[in-house]
Formats: sequence, structure tokens, C-alpha cells
Amino acid sequence: MDARIRRHAELLVDHCTDVGADDDVIIAAPTQATDLVVALYERLGERGARPRTWWQNQRASRAYHRTMDVEDYRPTRADRSAMAAADVAILIDGRTNASELSDVDPAKRAAVSRARKPILRERLDGTRWVITKHPTPADAQRAGMSTAAWADLIYDAIDVDWDAIREHQSTLAAVLDDASTLRLVVGERTDLQLSIDGMAALNDDGRENMPGGEVATVPVVDSATGTVAIDFPVRESGREIRDARLTFDDGTVVEADASRNAALLRHVLDTDDGARRLGEIGIGTNPGIDRITHTVLLDEKMAGTVHVALGEAMSECVPDDRTYNESARHVDMLVDVSEDARLEADGDVIQRNGEFVID
Amino acid sequence: MDARIRRHAELLVDHCTDVGADDDVIIAAPTQATDLVVALYERLGERGARPRTWWQNQRASRAYHRTMDVEDYRPTRADRSAMAAADVAILIDGRTNASELSDVDPAKRAAVSRARKPILRERLDGTRWVITKHPTPADAQRAGMSTAAWADLIYDAIDVDWDAIREHQSTLAAVLDDASTLRLVVGERTDLQLSIDGMAALNDDGRENMPGGEVATVPVVDSATGTVAIDFPVRESGREIRDARLTFDDGTVVEADASRNAALLRHVLDTDDGARRLGEIGIGTNPGIDRITHTVLLDEKMAGTVHVALGEAMSECVPDDRTYNESARHVDMLVDVSEDARLEADGDVIQRNGEFVID
Repeated sequence: MDARIRRHAELLVDHCTDVGADDDVIIAAPTQATDLVVALYERLGERGARPRTWWQNQRASRAYHRTMDVEDYRPTRADRSAMAAADVAILIDGRTNASELSDVDPAKRAAVSRARKPILRERLDGTRWVITKHPTPADAQRAGMSTAAWADLIYDAIDVDWDAIREHQSTLAAVLDDASTLRLVVGERTDLQLSIDGMAALNDDGRENMPGGEVATVPVVDSATGTVAIDFPVRESGREIRDARLTFDDGTVVEADASRNAALLRHVLDTDDGARRLGEIGIGTNPGIDRITHTVLLDEKMAGTVHVALGEAMSECVPDDRTYNESARHVDMLVDVSEDARLEADGDVIQRNGEFVID
Repeated sequence: MDARIRRHAELLVDHCTDVGADDDVIIAAPTQATDLVVALYERLGERGARPRTWWQNQRASRAYHRTMDVEDYRPTRADRSAMAAADVAILIDGRTNASELSDVDPAKRAAVSRARKPILRERLDGTRWVITKHPTPADAQRAGMSTAAWADLIYDAIDVDWDAIREHQSTLAAVLDDASTLRLVVGERTDLQLSIDGMAALNDDGRENMPGGEVATVPVVDSATGTVAIDFPVRESGREIRDARLTFDDGTVVEADASRNAALLRHVLDTDDGARRLGEIGIGTNPGIDRITHTVLLDEKMAGTVHVALGEAMSECVPDDRTYNESARHVDMLVDVSEDARLEADGDVIQRNGEFVID
């Protein structure tokens, strides 16, 4: 086994979720991640914890979605009970075919996400969780990379000095903590204004996402105003939404379009009320990621990139006296800030063309 | 996909477990059974049921068992909660390497089985369940067969007329229902006497095992007397127990030996008190199985074979006024009755050298 897989497992169990004796751990993993699951079991055995793996099988998921009647769908009691009893959830992504769900009705997917919200709630509120990525040939293909180079990129982004990242991010986190407003301007196409007044910044040192490496916060729920152009494709249900444009008024999407799969974008927005509002704005900082690969978990961590997310807010950022945006979705979307772009905090430019201009 | 896989899924969902709308279904399956899981999801979607697959990953299981400290082991609350909430359990066996667990300490395996008893209990008492087999190259190799011939054997045993099997078995079931004693004699090596007084016979038409095809009953708990030679290897934790001999007194094993892996046999017996007593005696009837393949799920169904099982009794056979043998184990063991053998019910020979001699 690649030694980096054992290192990955060690980070997931120790750094990300701090697994201890007597912890119940739910792992969700695809077939391709067999080696990582083996490495996790080895580590979890050492820790005295107890794993259960939910098999993520997209061919099965496709078959199910195509025959099911969404009107009758309710989430499994067994899943909810299991997640309620679990202490830790380790979710591993890694596709065999990134287009596997491309012939499933997106309205069904949205309805299932909605119905499964209580299970998501159990995970978010009741477990220590992490989402990670295992390198697969299909995801490498999507990135336009060899499988080996793709694996190198992922492991370079994972095996960094997380203490140093946290320290490095603390200046930016302090700026976002203190600021009351953010404004993102890119050419003529994006001008998005947000209040972040009273929100706490997240200094992501690789806990709930591995790789991590971002500083993020949550817009005040009714504050988003203006238009944001999503310059990179958004992967959704095995399809790509291209050139999405979202216009906000009083925090809610009032206009949405895309050059491709606009209907899919509207299905995302129609999932629930919270899916029409922003739950996050984040800035990537991870030095191990040197290119856009169309895998959002990595792209949003690439140093200098900016992303917003529709849907569920990041709970760490929202104090009790602020409204928390709830949704069954959390869809991250990347803005290209490499040219003619600036991010302002309280009117001061803090990032220009992807470069930080704070000390 | 092989059309026989869809037929297999149809039997599991409809015939074996009668899945309906609103049923929660836990599937346990190895990687090799991907096609069968896909076919099950397709069918379960049609039925309005909701599946969750537990990934059976023996490499991970080995890694976990080798690093864990068995003293600290408790079964997952998440598994127990999930099984308690589930309506149906479909357990699919099919090895990638039948020796994968051969370097795991059998005492650990026994301790884990013991600890997981409450989860087994939830399945046996609270769900409609079935155990089945998906053809894999490793299991074909163990049977000394090509993968294609092995698949043919399994599907021939599965896709039979189950109504005809039930009808065909009814005479034998009536004999076992009425009889008070059974005696199995093979050459000089086996002479086992049992009371089955008051026990109900099981006419297995492919419900809890697929393939099914046996008539079985449960010995009165303290009745087994004499010696039984287990002529075929018993597969246990990735190893083979060969030429096991068990001597019973008052229903309990008082002497046990084997020509190979005798220590492993003793670990099985030491699992709990119930593992030293018989929970079943059965007679195979399935016409689709034409040879011994060292896969007990099939071997015990081969027409004319006789098996006994140590451990947990079959609940269908034990009325409320009889003691129920509880155990974390149920280990089926086959006796070669092809030569110099007879099975008697109340002193009358009902089977001689594997051939039935009842009308």
C-alpha cells in the first residue's frame, strides 16, 4: 500500500476527527477507496474505536433513483438511527465514473436530498465529521491529469503542516472576524456585496475537509446583494452547470441562469428556501494545490481562489444571535479572481487578482 | 448484466423477504457483488423500499482485527440501532480471497462474534432476513471449478421452482414433525442419537437461505448423545477444520478433535455455552446442486446430504415450551452419508446412503 494512504488515514482519524476509544465511526466509501478503508480500519483498531462502512455505490444509486417514485420517498430510519448513534463520520469521495448519475432526474435528486435532511442534521450536529477525497482514474480524467499526477496533487494538499497553515491563516481570519462587510468585484460580471457583521471567521486547518486550507465566513442571511458570475463549472448530479450567474436581493437569489444545465441549477435552488441563500464565502490558502482540477473540494482550497456556497451555513461561523441558514444542500461555487478582481473588507482591498494585500 | 443476476435479486426481494413499500432494507455485500447490489437497488426502488449497503470488506476486517484489543471491544451502537430500525436484511457472501482472515487470531474472532450477539439478535428476531451467495473467482477456486461453471451451479440452485420444492419436501417434513427421535449412523465413525420430540420441522423453500432446499429440525437441547464425524472440511475464519469429531453427552460436546485446526474448533466451541450444543440437524433436497463445493450454504442443500449445526437454534422449529439454544454462532457441518450410512426416525430408516426410503 502507498505509504501516503496510511498517512491520509492517520490524519483523518487523529487530526480531523480525534477518534478515541469507544467511538462509533461511520465511514462512507466507494469501491475504489478500498486501500484507504483498510488503512482506516487498521488505525481505528489501534484506537479502540468501532467502524462501519456504508458502501457508496453510484451504479446502485443510479439504478435506485431511476426506478423509485420520489413521491413515496422517505429516508431510512436505519440510517438516521445509525447516524444518531455514531460519534464520528468519515466521508470518502472518489468516482469510478463522474458521469454515473448523469441520466438521473435532477428533481428526484433534489427531493431525496430534502428528504434526507434529518440524517444530514444528525451528522452536522451530532458527530465529528470530515469529507475527503481518494484519488481515482475517473477523477484524474476529469482533471485532465494522469492518475499518478492526480494522486500526487491530492497527497501534496493533504500532507502539509497544518499547524503552520493555521498560523499563516490567522491574519486573514482576524480581518474577516473584525470586518462588517465584504465586496467581491470581478470585471463587469461580478459585484457581490455582503454583510458579515457579527459572524466568526473559520480558520480551516483541515478538520471537516481534508485537504483543508481556507478562511471562510457566513454572510448575514438577508444581506447578499448584486450579481456573482461562477466562472468554473459546478459539478452537480453527474453533470456540469457552466457559467452560472446568480443575482441576489435581500440575501435571496432572484435571478439565475447558466450557459449549460440551467434547469439543473434551478433544481438546486428549488431544493428548499435555504438553497436560494448563501451559506458561505471562502478564500483558499492551501499551498499544495497548484491548479484548478474541477474537483471543488480541492479547487476551493487553492491559494488565492474565492468561492461562495448556496445552502446550509457553516455552523462554526454563526453565533446564536444570528439567523442560521438551514438547507439540505451546500453547493460550493468558484469565482475566477485571477484578473481584474478585488475583494474588499469594510471598503479596504484585502485581495487583488488572487494575491493577498494584507500584512 | 447477466440476466440471472436480476432474477436472483427478484427472488431475494420478493420470494425471500417479501419487501414492500416503506421497508428499510440493510444489505451487506462485498465488492465483487456490485452487479447484484445494483440489481437489488433497481428492484427496491420499484418496491418503494429504502436500501442501505454495509460494505463487507475482508481486507479491512483483517486489518481491524489485527490491531484491535479484544478486551476493549464492544459492538457499535450504530449497527445495533440500524438493525433495530431495519425491516429486512439481505446478506450477500462472495469472497475475493477465501483465506483473507487466515492470519487473524481465532480467539479474537470468537470474542467479536460474542460481543456482536445483540446485533445478531436484532436481525434474527426483528427483521425478515436472507443469506445468499454471489459467484466469485475465489469461491470458484475453492470449489475447484471455473468461475463460469461455479456461477452456473449457483444460479441452477437458485432458479428452481420453489413451490415444487416445498411440495416435494412436505413428506419428509411430516416425518420429522411427527418423529420423537433421530439416529444417524455412518460406518464405525458416527452414531448420533437425538430427541426431536415436540420440535417443528422446517420445510425450507428458499426463504432465509437462497439457495434453500432442505428439511431441518432442532434437537431437544440436552438430548444429543454419541459421536459424529464431520467428513467434509468446515470453513471457519479463513481456515479449514478437517476431520472434526464431536462427542456429545446430555446435549453438550464433551470431546472434540480434528486432524487440522483442532484449536480453531475449540475456539468455536468456547464462543459461548450454546456453541457446545446442536442447534440444527438438516437434510438437503435441492436438485440444482450436483456436487460438494466446500461452500456450506450450497453443500448442506445438496440432495441427500445430512448436516448438523453447532450453536443458535432455528427459531421456527422451537415451540415456546421447549428450551431455545442461544448462541452467537451457527456453524453448519456436513456428514458424508453416501456410503454405509442410515438415518432413522423413531427406529425406522428414512434415508440410506443418501437416498430417501420414505414414500
